[in-house]
Amino acid sequence: MGRDETSDMVRVLAQGKFDVLHPGHVHYLTESAAVGDELYVVVARDSRVSGRSDLYMDEESRRQVVEALGVVDVAVLGSEGSVFESVERIQPDVITVGFDQDWDVEELRDQLAAHGFPDVEVVRIGPMEGEGVSSSSDVRGVIKRREGPEAMESLVDPPEDG
Amino acid sequence: MGRDETSDMVRVLAQGKFDVLHPGHVHYLTESAAVGDELYVVVARDSRVSGRSDLYMDEESRRQVVEALGVVDVAVLGSEGSVFESVERIQPDVITVGFDQDWDVEELRDQLAAHGFPDVEVVRIGPMEGEGVSSSSDVRGVIKRREGPEAMESLVDPPEDG
Repeated sequence: MGRDETSDMVRVLAQGKFDVLHPGHVHYLTESAAVGDELYVVVARDSRVSGRSDLYMDEESRRQVVEALGVVDVAVLGSEGSVFESVERIQPDVITVGFDQDWDVEELRDQLAAHGFPDVEVVRIGPMEGEGVSSSSDVRGVIKRREGPEAMESLVDPPEDG
Repeated sequence: MGRDETSDMVRVLAQGKFDVLHPGHVHYLTESAAVGDELYVVVARDSRVSGRSDLYMDEESRRQVVEALGVVDVAVLGSEGSVFESVERIQPDVITVGFDQDWDVEELRDQLAAHGFPDVEVVRIGPMEGEGVSSSSDVRGVIKRREGPEAMESLVDPPEDG
């Protein structure tokens, strides 16, 4: 591994929305960090989040919270365009996908190759075990119980969601 | 300073609810850490949060997210009783209070003295400057705009709120 020929450091890219930070996010990022030596996190732009009117925090606030996590080296805002622009900018060796994210790993590998990144590995991180809210769906479950089913309509998982 | 005679480390205790983590929380905890050498965070128990039916996450989930922050050394759940039980357990040199928390600093100092902790300092942390959601009220502002004024009724700041 190692796209950057000047360094043996393995750079990992994780991505997500990270609106209401929960233990499942912490698990995903901790496991992502363990895959390599430095962890970059791409935080989805407001404009790229489906159901963005339901975001609790703006993109810069979400980025700041993610960057404050101990396992995160750098958190950046994503591209307004394709995710491959962020890949071009960050030049990761590995991209990690959360267990409940709508990426198909094989398809993502193919797309990376098609966009000129044939050497980037894709790793799916497994679900959290143990106590605590493990996914945004769980947080949304609380919202649904509180506000009624209609509150869920626009809370559909976007691909960017972590 | 230094209640623990075996150590010159200055132990800081911060406290709050930390339900939807935002940059204001990060600011409060970063500034709290800067006051001393190690930062303990007491996360309010579900049972001690007024408007607890509006919590998005249970106490253990909130604790895990706080402990994942880089500036936090230890995050523990608070006492089911008085905050002074946590003070007794953690033995801090300094307690920090957020700029928007309902503690009166002088009154807290008096109460600490009355409970046998006359040497614990109390420091109020100032508000965040710069971009980003700076307080839970801001997050609630978003909720209010989305859900209507009646959604705010039970979202009154409790003393435990960070």
